[in-house]
Amino acid sequence: MNKKAFLKELKRKVNIIEDALSQYLPGEDEYPETIHQSMRYSMLAGGKRLRPVLVLAAAEAVGGDVKKVIPAACAIEMIHTYSLIHDDLPAMDDDNYRRGKPTNHVVYGEAIAILAGDALLTLAFEVLSSLVEEPGIAPQKVLRVIKEISLAAGSRGLIGGQVVDIGSENLDISAETLKYIHINKTGALFKAALKTGAILSSASEEQITALSRYAHFLGLGFQITDDILDIEGDTEKLGKPVGSDIKKKKATYPSIFGLQEAKQMAREAVAESLMSLEGFDERADFLREMARYLLERDN
Amino acid sequence: MNKKAFLKELKRKVNIIEDALSQYLPGEDEYPETIHQSMRYSMLAGGKRLRPVLVLAAAEAVGGDVKKVIPAACAIEMIHTYSLIHDDLPAMDDDNYRRGKPTNHVVYGEAIAILAGDALLTLAFEVLSSLVEEPGIAPQKVLRVIKEISLAAGSRGLIGGQVVDIGSENLDISAETLKYIHINKTGALFKAALKTGAILSSASEEQITALSRYAHFLGLGFQITDDILDIEGDTEKLGKPVGSDIKKKKATYPSIFGLQEAKQMAREAVAESLMSLEGFDERADFLREMARYLLERDN
Repeated sequence: MNKKAFLKELKRKVNIIEDALSQYLPGEDEYPETIHQSMRYSMLAGGKRLRPVLVLAAAEAVGGDVKKVIPAACAIEMIHTYSLIHDDLPAMDDDNYRRGKPTNHVVYGEAIAILAGDALLTLAFEVLSSLVEEPGIAPQKVLRVIKEISLAAGSRGLIGGQVVDIGSENLDISAETLKYIHINKTGALFKAALKTGAILSSASEEQITALSRYAHFLGLGFQITDDILDIEGDTEKLGKPVGSDIKKKKATYPSIFGLQEAKQMAREAVAESLMSLEGFDERADFLREMARYLLERDN
Repeated sequence: MNKKAFLKELKRKVNIIEDALSQYLPGEDEYPETIHQSMRYSMLAGGKRLRPVLVLAAAEAVGGDVKKVIPAACAIEMIHTYSLIHDDLPAMDDDNYRRGKPTNHVVYGEAIAILAGDALLTLAFEVLSSLVEEPGIAPQKVLRVIKEISLAAGSRGLIGGQVVDIGSENLDISAETLKYIHINKTGALFKAALKTGAILSSASEEQITALSRYAHFLGLGFQITDDILDIEGDTEKLGKPVGSDIKKKKATYPSIFGLQEAKQMAREAVAESLMSLEGFDERADFLREMARYLLERDN
């Protein structure tokens, strides 16, 4: 798969997700309207859709039916979006812009933003529970996926990462703490995405483990690249001001390891992620290109 | 069952729930400690434990095994507690005390309070997904329960009720809006509690419907009584200042219908809830006494 074919396929997958998301969300004229408008505002504000795309790609890599895993992919994106809405709140990172648009609480107020996040997290589990209606997905598999996702999203995953992140602002933190933040804040949901696509497609335990390892290194490479883009990127392409990590005195890979070393670490993470896919055939080519793409991206 | 036997049995059930809750929650020395301490602070701060007790009582009423439904009962209490933590935030009701103790954000700060709520909601679904490990509970039933609970807790239930509630402060609202708030903010989770206990105990659809109807009227009676206690209650017994609804200009049953009419409505709701149990034998006596108890309570 060359880069052009990858980008075309990426766009196709993103479109599938965005269409499905719009359908799973309550309409903006459904009472009480503000909460539903607020949920749709953040869910349909664009974004890379990496996690749901990875769910589809994992299903594909193990020869599964991509269509069947779409609800689970949407659920994971809902969890990701809820976490962004809450992270942006004045009590947390206090960000007024995301993806070039005013953040949820700027538009709808803090109360509705908190509740919209809560509602998206809740809706994710409703959508997951309805997976059992897809023919050929055993209820046990759905429950395993719900367990994986709730573990990844909880205080021992995503939320734990955010807790340590906000507790580390303006502090000199160790490489170990930085790693904890990213393994949990980004890595956990990446892993859950790959595992979800694989479990629902009846992958072998060996395949699930390999895809989970892929996700671990992909998440790491993604995060380091994010930190580098905050230094070397372009404000317009990023949709957020370059240098915001430095302004907030946030510990990042470049700030702890230096820019050149951070770049080397990102390359190594991507190489590791590719190695995890060695046992897979060409149906994993999309995942392979994805790893390269995330390293080279400019936004 | 006389009142004394009921109170003894209520206490026994509450103890079962509190022991189980403590076990399901991460320990307060688990990293990152603040979030786990914050989760435990609100979860183990007492409270009536009505919803989880109702899960156990529903299982009992249909001849099920109470022990098996304990995890589900705990999950529902986690959702109730998360909603209280978020409701109390400065951006919402801005309450500094609950059950006579400082609210979560007063002790741990807003950021951790938001995240502790998020983590409890997430943990609820993790605990629910683990129900499948109980022998004799079919995975389909667990998924049905997850669906019922997520619907009840989402923007078409609990959260929808809260949205309309905060949007109605200082406004003259109609009886219809007041009803919407309570059916969703209180009723939905009451209903889900009864249904959960029944579904996991292999109740008939007829029994599930009857218990759901019981829950609807019980929730209504409970809410009206709450409103009345805010006028006629005792600050010390309630653990919160009497008259806070009036101070906040909140619409309540007494403010819309008058105190005498509200009392009559509460009595009627309890009578309706009792009627819903007509098809049940003496194993539903606890539920019957519960309805009477909630009408007569002083806290």
